[in-house]
Amino acid sequence: MSTLIDQLRAIVGAAHVLTRDDGNDLSAWEQDWRKRAHGHALAVVRPGSTDEVSAVVRACAAAGHSMVPQGGNTGLVVGSVPDDSGHQVVLSLTRLNQVRAIDGANLTMTVEAGCILQTLQETAQKAGFLFPLSLAAEGSCTIGGNLATNAGGTQVVRYGNARDLCLGLEVVTAQGEVWQGLGGLRKDNTGYDLRDLFVGSEGTLGIITAATMKLYPLPAAQLTAWAAVPSLEAAVALLGLAHRHLGAGLTGFEVMGQFALGLVDRHMPQLRVPLWADHPYCVLLENSDSESEAHARTQFEHLLESAFEDGIVSDAVVAESLQQAHQLWHIRESIPLAQAEEGLNIKHDISIPVSRIPAFCAETDALLQREIPGVRLVNFGHLGDGNLHYNVQAPAHGDPATFLREQEARVNTLVFDQVHRFGGSISAEHGVGSLKADKLPLYKDPVALGLMRSIKQALDPHNILNPGRVLA
Amino acid sequence: MSTLIDQLRAIVGAAHVLTRDDGNDLSAWEQDWRKRAHGHALAVVRPGSTDEVSAVVRACAAAGHSMVPQGGNTGLVVGSVPDDSGHQVVLSLTRLNQVRAIDGANLTMTVEAGCILQTLQETAQKAGFLFPLSLAAEGSCTIGGNLATNAGGTQVVRYGNARDLCLGLEVVTAQGEVWQGLGGLRKDNTGYDLRDLFVGSEGTLGIITAATMKLYPLPAAQLTAWAAVPSLEAAVALLGLAHRHLGAGLTGFEVMGQFALGLVDRHMPQLRVPLWADHPYCVLLENSDSESEAHARTQFEHLLESAFEDGIVSDAVVAESLQQAHQLWHIRESIPLAQAEEGLNIKHDISIPVSRIPAFCAETDALLQREIPGVRLVNFGHLGDGNLHYNVQAPAHGDPATFLREQEARVNTLVFDQVHRFGGSISAEHGVGSLKADKLPLYKDPVALGLMRSIKQALDPHNILNPGRVLA
Repeated sequence: MSTLIDQLRAIVGAAHVLTRDDGNDLSAWEQDWRKRAHGHALAVVRPGSTDEVSAVVRACAAAGHSMVPQGGNTGLVVGSVPDDSGHQVVLSLTRLNQVRAIDGANLTMTVEAGCILQTLQETAQKAGFLFPLSLAAEGSCTIGGNLATNAGGTQVVRYGNARDLCLGLEVVTAQGEVWQGLGGLRKDNTGYDLRDLFVGSEGTLGIITAATMKLYPLPAAQLTAWAAVPSLEAAVALLGLAHRHLGAGLTGFEVMGQFALGLVDRHMPQLRVPLWADHPYCVLLENSDSESEAHARTQFEHLLESAFEDGIVSDAVVAESLQQAHQLWHIRESIPLAQAEEGLNIKHDISIPVSRIPAFCAETDALLQREIPGVRLVNFGHLGDGNLHYNVQAPAHGDPATFLREQEARVNTLVFDQVHRFGGSISAEHGVGSLKADKLPLYKDPVALGLMRSIKQALDPHNILNPGRVLA
Repeated sequence: MSTLIDQLRAIVGAAHVLTRDDGNDLSAWEQDWRKRAHGHALAVVRPGSTDEVSAVVRACAAAGHSMVPQGGNTGLVVGSVPDDSGHQVVLSLTRLNQVRAIDGANLTMTVEAGCILQTLQETAQKAGFLFPLSLAAEGSCTIGGNLATNAGGTQVVRYGNARDLCLGLEVVTAQGEVWQGLGGLRKDNTGYDLRDLFVGSEGTLGIITAATMKLYPLPAAQLTAWAAVPSLEAAVALLGLAHRHLGAGLTGFEVMGQFALGLVDRHMPQLRVPLWADHPYCVLLENSDSESEAHARTQFEHLLESAFEDGIVSDAVVAESLQQAHQLWHIRESIPLAQAEEGLNIKHDISIPVSRIPAFCAETDALLQREIPGVRLVNFGHLGDGNLHYNVQAPAHGDPATFLREQEARVNTLVFDQVHRFGGSISAEHGVGSLKADKLPLYKDPVALGLMRSIKQALDPHNILNPGRVLA
């Protein structure tokens, strides 16, 4: 009887089965993007077709080896790297990278799991369409990973999460069967919604090999504004006003706290951050218009006039050019790097009903200040979706590494307890992975957890797909 | 030991347990809206709270009686009436009819399952918001039923199906546990998407008792246009052009075939159908504008000018007033009644990728003509979503009842085989119920069916929730 490695080589070709024994450096597959976890795989297998994925799953299942599906390996919750047993097989989907079809009249494209997100944005644009999923890792993350983690990003306020952009899937089950669920139907009520069950299941219920995704017409113009607001309450009021004035034109609504912008100003002085010094929060708004830039500008002017009158905007600039717009977005996107320059901090990816965010922040800011005097809050995120990256930085002059080591567990508990009290989620867009799997029983409805366990047991009874992720 | 009826009376109060033995007429609960099925219930139970639903489920499960959840009982696929065993309990949710909360800043409302759809539309409007789910039965259907069947309707092209409007659920499981999954989060990646699993499961996996639904700003103006097009290809081209010109302003795109409009003209002469006599298809477009009526009108003018130039619109009218707009919509909504006046026909609720609809109709029209010479097609529906009500009427002078009796099975097979060949769905928005449960194994991917059976077995192992629906 041949070994599993031999079988895998027979299925995908020897060149696509990587092992350490053959002298390969597997670290790119074995450690997560933030380098918090370092595993040890039996092998990295790179199938080149859906049928090969199916055969790999059958071989691993028969041999009793669990699998870790992996796309661009850019996840933030340690969901796509192997454990340190040396027994798991990393199933890399990156060779499945074909755009199978673009159907302009149906506003869909069918793509394989390993396609890079940015490539899909560009492919859509070349065909005259918008594929609106957009997030920091877009240059290296894959659509399969985006779907497996239900990725969010900066245009969710208009276009929804990855889930909302997906019309159909092709999935290899834990039994190695292939569910052919592709197809660009916007209405299909012939049974349970398997698509949304696999989306966001982080590779624990099946392996997504292809998807049919929605396309949109390219907007005629995209305009960006930067507004200083006197409070978080004002930012929420501005969001409501923006919804009314811009309708579905509102494609981005990001909030940035003064301390977060101060870090960008300090560590990236070349970026010239506007309006931050005298205001507690700034907001970045994007208006995508199907008509013209002039129309988008007029809409922004009306919105901002109205907001000034209401006292919810203190000052504002509207980008005069696409280049200026990119600069404003670049400031927003530089916050993660600026905080890293300041030193390690404790990161959170939380969501709260938008209406409760001001009270949540006021209470939680004060609570953390009481518990850890001098602590600094890098608060920013997708306010349009109620999603904050509410990050906690060591007090000035404190040692970031010591702070992280000594305070992370305590701060997480303080913040997550508050999130729970405010009806929020401890993982808005990053998922659970291994990093938060032990937290779920503390904060998730027990009936929901029971249902999730029943489903996992039903679909993957031998726990061979990404074990220990989502459900610890 | 008390009987089940006694236990149910103890739970919900004697006044809310209706039985035939007590002299009640149960026909309103025992037969479906189209009066195709007449069942016989042990009792109709009307719980007044989620806790009562939970207790009813436990009592019925313990006694081995299956349950049929029911809302407004307006479904079209025989999914909410009992079988004729006299053993099933109808669980009517209509007493759960409270709006629990409206959160304007979060753009959500939390409502109980028994709320009438139209009441929710009006409640939202009074609070200054749009709740966009809209369909023919809105005056009597309930939001719980809308969610259980993932209802569609006339604004799906912009706002999606019931599924897309739902952010959270409260559900009583087959074990009588209550999943507290309410809350208005737009991002929550803490585990499997249970919400979308229950939405569209037709009461076979759990009983939806409440939901948090999305609200939208009220549009500043809604404008309606009626365009005659030279072909179905032209209608599809017009849809693409409308997406580009109107963006998310395009909130309705309905197509109506000449024969369908001719029936309205014949049976409802007072309605004055425009442009139908000389054109094979007409299209109804709605533009919802966040700015003004003048702006919406200019947009429509630009769209129609461009469409005339391209030769994809032959003639068009834009409603001059809200009253005119209502009249145009009324014509569209009168097609079902007009075809009933003409006599019983064979109804289909199908979806096809929009791009393939012209070829599907050309082929299927010709096929049916070959098979049943003189057959007449009442073709109309939500072209924006690829959803057609492709109904087949007896040849002129034929007897409709005889036609239905003799041809229904054969016509269904002809049409469904074609739908399948074109990558479509045999139930776009109406669901499966009992009516199509036997068809699923013929047209649904067998792996998908296997996954559905595994999930049903995992969540409702004793098959006490709406047995025989969806999965025969």
